Amino acid sequence: MDRGRLEAFSDGVFAVAITLLALNLAVGGPGHGPLLQQLGQHWPTFIAYLISFFTIGIIWVNHHALMTNIRVVDRTLLFLNLLLLLFVVVIPFATATMAEYLTSGGQDAHTAMALYALVFEGMSLAFCFIFGWTLGEGRSHRPVPRERRRRAWLQFGVGLLVYLVATGVAFVNAPAALAIIGLVAVYYMVDPRPAAVRRAD
Amino acid sequence: MDRGRLEAFSDGVFAVAITLLALNLAVGGPGHGPLLQQLGQHWPTFIAYLISFFTIGIIWVNHHALMTNIRVVDRTLLFLNLLLLLFVVVIPFATATMAEYLTSGGQDAHTAMALYALVFEGMSLAFCFIFGWTLGEGRSHRPVPRERRRRAWLQFGVGLLVYLVATGVAFVNAPAALAIIGLVAVYYMVDPRPAAVRRAD
Amino acid sequence: MDRGRLEAFSDGVFAVAITLLALNLAVGGPGHGPLLQQLGQHWPTFIAYLISFFTIGIIWVNHHALMTNIRVVDRTLLFLNLLLLLFVVVIPFATATMAEYLTSGGQDAHTAMALYALVFEGMSLAFCFIFGWTLGEGRSHRPVPRERRRRAWLQFGVGLLVYLVATGVAFVNAPAALAIIGLVAVYYMVDPRPAAVRRAD
Amino acid sequence: MDRGRLEAFSDGVFAVAITLLALNLAVGGPGHGPLLQQLGQHWPTFIAYLISFFTIGIIWVNHHALMTNIRVVDRTLLFLNLLLLLFVVVIPFATATMAEYLTSGGQDAHTAMALYALVFEGMSLAFCFIFGWTLGEGRSHRPVPRERRRRAWLQFGVGLLVYLVATGVAFVNAPAALAIIGLVAVYYMVDPRPAAVRRAD
Repeated sequence: MDRGRLEAFSDGVFAVAITLLALNLAVGGPGHGPLLQQLGQHWPTFIAYLISFFTIGIIWVNHHALMTNIRVVDRTLLFLNLLLLLFVVVIPFATATMAEYLTSGGQDAHTAMALYALVFEGMSLAFCFIFGWTLGEGRSHRPVPRERRRRAWLQFGVGLLVYLVATGVAFVNAPAALAIIGLVAVYYMVDPRPAAVRRAD
Repeated sequence: MDRGRLEAFSDGVFAVAITLLALNLAVGGPGHGPLLQQLGQHWPTFIAYLISFFTIGIIWVNHHALMTNIRVVDRTLLFLNLLLLLFVVVIPFATATMAEYLTSGGQDAHTAMALYALVFEGMSLAFCFIFGWTLGEGRSHRPVPRERRRRAWLQFGVGLLVYLVATGVAFVNAPAALAIIGLVAVYYMVDPRPAAVRRAD
Repeated sequence: MDRGRLEAFSDGVFAVAITLLALNLAVGGPGHGPLLQQLGQHWPTFIAYLISFFTIGIIWVNHHALMTNIRVVDRTLLFLNLLLLLFVVVIPFATATMAEYLTSGGQDAHTAMALYALVFEGMSLAFCFIFGWTLGEGRSHRPVPRERRRRAWLQFGVGLLVYLVATGVAFVNAPAALAIIGLVAVYYMVDPRPAAVRRAD
Repeated sequence: MDRGRLEAFSDGVFAVAITLLALNLAVGGPGHGPLLQQLGQHWPTFIAYLISFFTIGIIWVNHHALMTNIRVVDRTLLFLNLLLLLFVVVIPFATATMAEYLTSGGQDAHTAMALYALVFEGMSLAFCFIFGWTLGEGRSHRPVPRERRRRAWLQFGVGLLVYLVATGVAFVNAPAALAIIGLVAVYYMVDPRPAAVRRAD
């Protein structure tokens, strides 16, 4: 199997998922109070949209960075990639649920935020599996030097750890967990490419 | 017609269908009881999502495996491929209906599960037609040896037969039929590629 | 502009539109009567799904056939192509409306069917514009012989005329108009490629 | 990163967004009055659909024109492109909201139209950022002559300014703002390619 179709299919899924995010922005329509007020009360939805949009964008960028160095596509990679997409596809649902419950207060806000953080944790884990796979003998065009490998694991580890922390924090303070997840997005936007696949140092 | 656009269009349909699956995960929202309880009662939806997601993933992988060996794309293949997509596109609907009725008890749970199994049976049949087409004189890059051909038919036959059995079982015990369909997915994930298109033995 | 991206974008639109068709299949859910009965009363939806699915499939096949021979992509072609997609994108809406009103009886069934036929008439017209454009000096790789040109116009004319007739018939007998539109799909599936772009005679 | 995957992902987003637009066309269904009357009262939705459809079409055409000349794809471009897509993805939501409130009268019609115009202003701004980026040393295949550069800025400036004016006008007269936005679409359809990337003068 050539890499092209794996990328094309994944890009399709990323594109649909990132566009479906915006379906949740819909307001109640006439008869649900002044529009400006509706939009104002909708603020968690807009913030959730922003964070999820850029997180999917980062996943897409990193996905590409990981794939460009791959030499063979085997069955294991296909299913690890499906595992990643399984979590990507769930992001619009987790985003909508989180935004809906964030201001509802009580236990539900905690549950919804933990669900949101867990989806990113799962996505992060799938990325680690894919990166681990690429390190196997003969799977990459260029071998990944030990030093870069260490740094890449560090970077992936940051995601894994912080999303796990966010899941825990969600049960104590939901908005704080959201802030953490937003900061991860900013961190990866500033320096998102796994060190292992950077061209020149 | 070149294979590229046939694959691109099919990949697009697979990507949209697999992403639309997650639309069904939506919960009722605030005012429908505690979120954790809603998610708990939603378990058939999550299981249905997992099974349908990986089944579409497998269809995509097998579709690619069948296409890579094709030399010419004629009108017949285009419409056999459309027949396959006809069933793929229906999967999100069949999944949502099945998940909604699975715990409703009574006759409806049986009907919904039979519908779900029948969609996979139809998809499986379309795959057989496509595989049969590829065996025609001059349609493949490399001729398919008799032994591999036999094994491929065996593998396709397994799908055809087991989805038919699941349709029957659905009328007796809906969860059992779901378990069977899940096992087919696991079977094809472990050894999904039609033997006929495997590179080296 | 190269043809590749025009085709990729169009394929994306075709893939999303053909998959969205199936969203209309959704039944009412538990509490709306026995599922089997709901599915039975849903028959216009299933027939509408089949006809629209294969019609979009045919549009996609013909679109490809028309594009393969194109040498330059200019602004006019881009906007003629957008005009075609404008109607393609509307098909899921027209299909859902038609299916919903077909059995409602009275004037609404006629209106809905006429709307459905008009969307196909518009799509058909856009195809004629695109074909007319391809005949311009230096726009195709191979010039189209006069005899084939005549046959292609004949084929496009059939679509234009029959969809117009179906629009008229819709006001008298809605199911008859649906049957006509279904027959057009069968006609194009049996011999859909515009004669002008057939490889060998 | 090669340009191909950036374009493929963007095309996917454009294709999904342009197709989702039509979801808003759905009428109330039987029991909501005569269909013809429903469609008649729906006129803002149809006009909004037309304007948004062709505006996304123009964005897609211009996006392609800007990308063809690009030599390197760096992280900055990826995130500027994501910024553009952020606004594109929001267009179906802004279109639906605008159409729903246009005839509701009062303050809400103004708010909804201003929101609609602001989304296009944001999209326009993202385009300016991308164009500015392409002017950087060594980022384009062919350097952009000063004269063309000036004209391209002029063209982008028109969009930026007119969408801003439309936002202001929206607060005074919503239909007038819609007319302005429609005229921008017509203007860009007649001469949409940024002068900087035109092949021959």
